[in-house]
Amino acid sequence: MTRERLYLYDTTLRDGQQTQGVQFSTAEKVRIARMLDDLGVDYIEGGWPGANPTDSAFFEAAPQTRARMTAFGMTKRAGRSAENDEVLAGVLNAGTPAVCLVGKTHDFHVTTALGITLDENITSIAQSVAHAVAQGREVLFDAEHFFDGWKADADYAFDCLKAAHDAGARWIVLCDTNGGTLPGEIGEITASVIARGIPGDVLGIHTHDDTGNAVAGSLAAVQAGARQVQGTLNGLGERCGNANLTTLIPTLALKEPFASRFDTGITDKALSGLTHVSRVLDDILNRVPLKSAPYVGASAFAHKAGLHASAILKDPTTYEHIVPETVGNARIIPMSNQAGQSNLRRRLAEAGLEVARDNPALPTILDEIKTREGQGYSYDTAQASFELVARRHLGQLPEFFKVKRYRVTVERRRDEKGRPISLSEAVVVLLVDGERKLSVSESLDAQGNDRGPVNALSRALAKDLGTYQRYIDDMRLVDFKVRITNGGTEAVTRVIIDSADGQGRRWSTVGVSPNIVDASFEALLDAIIWKLVRDGAE
Amino acid sequence: MTRERLYLYDTTLRDGQQTQGVQFSTAEKVRIARMLDDLGVDYIEGGWPGANPTDSAFFEAAPQTRARMTAFGMTKRAGRSAENDEVLAGVLNAGTPAVCLVGKTHDFHVTTALGITLDENITSIAQSVAHAVAQGREVLFDAEHFFDGWKADADYAFDCLKAAHDAGARWIVLCDTNGGTLPGEIGEITASVIARGIPGDVLGIHTHDDTGNAVAGSLAAVQAGARQVQGTLNGLGERCGNANLTTLIPTLALKEPFASRFDTGITDKALSGLTHVSRVLDDILNRVPLKSAPYVGASAFAHKAGLHASAILKDPTTYEHIVPETVGNARIIPMSNQAGQSNLRRRLAEAGLEVARDNPALPTILDEIKTREGQGYSYDTAQASFELVARRHLGQLPEFFKVKRYRVTVERRRDEKGRPISLSEAVVVLLVDGERKLSVSESLDAQGNDRGPVNALSRALAKDLGTYQRYIDDMRLVDFKVRITNGGTEAVTRVIIDSADGQGRRWSTVGVSPNIVDASFEALLDAIIWKLVRDGAE
Repeated sequence: MTRERLYLYDTTLRDGQQTQGVQFSTAEKVRIARMLDDLGVDYIEGGWPGANPTDSAFFEAAPQTRARMTAFGMTKRAGRSAENDEVLAGVLNAGTPAVCLVGKTHDFHVTTALGITLDENITSIAQSVAHAVAQGREVLFDAEHFFDGWKADADYAFDCLKAAHDAGARWIVLCDTNGGTLPGEIGEITASVIARGIPGDVLGIHTHDDTGNAVAGSLAAVQAGARQVQGTLNGLGERCGNANLTTLIPTLALKEPFASRFDTGITDKALSGLTHVSRVLDDILNRVPLKSAPYVGASAFAHKAGLHASAILKDPTTYEHIVPETVGNARIIPMSNQAGQSNLRRRLAEAGLEVARDNPALPTILDEIKTREGQGYSYDTAQASFELVARRHLGQLPEFFKVKRYRVTVERRRDEKGRPISLSEAVVVLLVDGERKLSVSESLDAQGNDRGPVNALSRALAKDLGTYQRYIDDMRLVDFKVRITNGGTEAVTRVIIDSADGQGRRWSTVGVSPNIVDASFEALLDAIIWKLVRDGAE
Repeated sequence: MTRERLYLYDTTLRDGQQTQGVQFSTAEKVRIARMLDDLGVDYIEGGWPGANPTDSAFFEAAPQTRARMTAFGMTKRAGRSAENDEVLAGVLNAGTPAVCLVGKTHDFHVTTALGITLDENITSIAQSVAHAVAQGREVLFDAEHFFDGWKADADYAFDCLKAAHDAGARWIVLCDTNGGTLPGEIGEITASVIARGIPGDVLGIHTHDDTGNAVAGSLAAVQAGARQVQGTLNGLGERCGNANLTTLIPTLALKEPFASRFDTGITDKALSGLTHVSRVLDDILNRVPLKSAPYVGASAFAHKAGLHASAILKDPTTYEHIVPETVGNARIIPMSNQAGQSNLRRRLAEAGLEVARDNPALPTILDEIKTREGQGYSYDTAQASFELVARRHLGQLPEFFKVKRYRVTVERRRDEKGRPISLSEAVVVLLVDGERKLSVSESLDAQGNDRGPVNALSRALAKDLGTYQRYIDDMRLVDFKVRITNGGTEAVTRVIIDSADGQGRRWSTVGVSPNIVDASFEALLDAIIWKLVRDGAE
């Protein structure tokens, strides 16, 4: 059976830039556009040329893509012709094959926000679309606040769509701009638009996540007949974000009733790179990936409940709705207090350690993990530290070096002008290949600002590892989490450190002590040792 | 018009604990249960008594709640009677008014995961429910994998429900355990169950967010007739999490077609505390609040796009689907500072500071709070530090003493037997009443164990405050949380310290610095100063 084509429109570079705290550089935009093209979306909305320098520069530097590069802008303002509107001209001058023009369809917005008459607005829509079509562009009309507009005055809202459609727009995009329309209503209104005469195969859907329903609203519109879905990678976007394409793409590709009915143009191979795409975007934006993200989150296939973990070992489909590898993700069975030896073997295998069922180290590893969890360690996320504990018992952990001692000093005083200044200093003494290595580091960064004692310690520790130095030069500390927890009856500090390296690996280690500096030191040490093991240092 | 009752069932303390990296202590469970009760949910599922020590301890320490406290467990195992199943006995022995028993309804799981016959499973369900009902409990039956089971064998899945219903279960909860069923199908299957004879007012819905549709699936089930909604605060839960009650509660209370049709029992006042509840839970778990969270996220009402921001100033309804204050959240308009003065006055009043509407300090306090939040401070829980910022601007904060300098040393070395030992030492120099006070403390506790640098610093700081010493003798540090966050473009450390005193007061203070010791020192100082203010020191 031939599947019907369903088009994907990505607005990460435009609506995604409205995320609080997100500001793309031109180079980042180019990199993301390439990634989107490799993923296989149909349209890439690159920005609003003329609205800000980055967007204008992007269109000048825009990469060649198979996807249709699209410039965003708004319909001409009232009181001037489409030809004489310099904002519209800026959009068309970007020279993209497609342009997406946003216009009002909600009477209240026409009169309140624009302050023009309802007829003037319809004229602006019709003339702007016709003008862009006359220049040979594929035109999309973004019907802003369409669902609210329909509820306020369905006739007027529909007339706006019809004006764009009659003027030659290829797509009419129904936007739930404020994100307040629930999926049921989105489906019903989309069906009504089709019933009134605008065919579903020119309709697009653009939702926001203000009620946590952006994905469901998009699916409801597709079920009602819309054939273009707009969204952003990782659900970036203003307020609560746009419909998350990272969630929608696998849902449309893998789940019924969509999978057998629609072809989104995303290949299986591209789909299996989805988790990577999601993580790379977070890396570009220096955001911590959301563990609980559907399909691509680090926890999306993590089975913590004891009952689930044991059933998963019998048959993964018992507690997984899709095969994690289809989206490039992986199953995780965290060590919890109920976990048994078979979980342990599975987890060791994931770390590349094949251990026979009757290996006598298995019960001792399990015991040590349990004892350590009782002391406050947590191995849910700190897989690298878990692996080191196991390797130690399996006799697969060389002693690369010895820590003889360290000392950290934190000082705060007033400078000659009476301003408080602080400074940390760390001394670490290691024994590497029988040689005593003394290293000292301060906590000052390139700008002369104090970055604190853990920073000083981390630098002193990584300063001179002798023969091993070359393995750790591309390492960096990317996250650092501290919490007070119970170790036996005493409160202890648990530090979890995330590290990354030049090969794109990211790993977590844990340290526990009543002394936060000690706990940090332990996690830092584990991070370095894991890296040496993985890189095959000897 | 009378609205129909829709029941809310919270499982934060049970399913929420399956979140990777989340491990509640008993005290935290008690605190969260109280918070849920204040919020006004109908049921609080406290855990699985007998499954682990924390859950058992919680039921022994469970607070008195208006909400029905519920113990979770599973139906009896095959081959023994309900009376002789010690797992079931453990659940009933917790003595809660309600019990929720999970059982299989999917033929594949009965034969593959349990390895028993289909009839044996139905007998287990019927007898377990009947046994709990006979003990006078309100019984909920959690129909695990119900939607997948229905798709595989609707007759068998229905027979499982019917067995529980006939045995006297008050609620039959339809669970989409693997989270793979889309909202459309959830609605259809729920309607089919009702059409087959189990009334909607005994049906509950329990969804997971593996396709990003947990909220939409819950809404679809309610529209189809289900009358109990299960979920967790902040969408905690295994894998991608459970249906997010923090999203569902305002949607059901404020959005149509739900708001005018259903009464969830949540008062307007409780609803206006929802953002606070969400943040406090994150604080307890030391998680970074999700900015883009619907309704309660810090970005949920942030208007970054220039067009949106200017329209918002004309009329907020142009780009907001609800009024942010209804859920205790606030509008954020970058470049505009007019939001929040009335919020600020309300918060000052809570701290006992009545400030007139036209007090010129109000805008400067607001500015400083916003500037500090930009630097990484967070005042959601650190009410005591917030109060000190305000008092400083209001001229209501005496300078009790001056900090001249401090120095902390952390050392780790090997003792004479080659064992690693660590020790911290802190020196603090204060100026009190014109007198220079030098204090030094070590980090060793009464047992001679190192408690770390913050402990040493805290003791040195509180060692000799001269005339103020008597005010702080009953103070102690009860919790200490550290998080890496962004301050401007740099990563900084945020420390939140909870202190308590002999009068039973508990207060939180915050410090921010790239240097964790500095950040801790700032929070410790605030804690002492707040105590001096509150106790009327002069």
